[in-house]
Amino acid sequence: MLNRVPPLVPPPGGADGPVVDALRFRDGMSRVAASVHVVTTDGPAGRAGFTATAVAPVTDSPASLLVCIDAAGRSARALAANGVFCVNTLAVSDRALAEAFAGHSGLSGEARFSAGRWGSLATGAPALETSLVAFDCRLVEARLVATHYVVIGAVVGVRLGPATTALAYRERGYHGL
Amino acid sequence: MLNRVPPLVPPPGGADGPVVDALRFRDGMSRVAASVHVVTTDGPAGRAGFTATAVAPVTDSPASLLVCIDAAGRSARALAANGVFCVNTLAVSDRALAEAFAGHSGLSGEARFSAGRWGSLATGAPALETSLVAFDCRLVEARLVATHYVVIGAVVGVRLGPATTALAYRERGYHGL
Repeated sequence: MLNRVPPLVPPPGGADGPVVDALRFRDGMSRVAASVHVVTTDGPAGRAGFTATAVAPVTDSPASLLVCIDAAGRSARALAANGVFCVNTLAVSDRALAEAFAGHSGLSGEARFSAGRWGSLATGAPALETSLVAFDCRLVEARLVATHYVVIGAVVGVRLGPATTALAYRERGYHGL
Repeated sequence: MLNRVPPLVPPPGGADGPVVDALRFRDGMSRVAASVHVVTTDGPAGRAGFTATAVAPVTDSPASLLVCIDAAGRSARALAANGVFCVNTLAVSDRALAEAFAGHSGLSGEARFSAGRWGSLATGAPALETSLVAFDCRLVEARLVATHYVVIGAVVGVRLGPATTALAYRERGYHGL
């Protein structure tokens, strides 16, 4: 079971004060390379999915990862209501899926799943058959930080796909790694 | 100011239940590519630093990022006590620093800073002069999730360094991107 204690560390300097502006932060973040994932969900609130790079492992005891997700979007509501999600790490050959699930091809909701071969693991969240790895997760916590949720999932299934070139994002463009 | 509300979403399936074992999770995570960072701190608890790949942007309003950090380590205690940290995104030419701050060269604490050119931005946390980008952060929250803290920082400074090749980690090895 994940510990769910209150914050242990009060901010010594206080939580408020000037921060850099959004543009400066985004310019800085463009220097950071990341894998590209499609995060999906399915259940009573329906099927939904979105492209994410803000994914990180939290601990392996118990196996847990986190995803940051725009709190205002339809995907966040569906994911929270369904209580399950699947993180699909994309191969470079699935770049078109990254663009579709980022909304760049004008598709939303269910229609985004018209491309790609989709199955599922334990939770029922869509798992992409061509993903490098799929992490099937049970939602443990969604913590609101201003505009985004930090969603923590307990990893109930891992499927390793082909060990091919990963799709990475850096300097506002896609790369293979 | 960052919202610091309790979890909004109770886990529909409950927080408990079987998860994949640590080895399986790590095998899965080896497929995920990530930038390599050295996260540093300085202040009353002294100077410390560690290599991290579990770094993600949270929101740009206000500019915030997160770092996952082993709760048992000296760096976590120093970071929490100092209340500030700096995320230094490494260029491929600083691979030796990644290894030193991961503890692979047998150095700990202050001694890790014997290599590299170090300055600081606003908070006093060490900023690497050759980093692709340095994010100077005020600690906002450190939330314990089992063995690790999810540390959220408000970004009070961003310094863009040379736009050279990034150091990335994937399949348990270093790569340039």
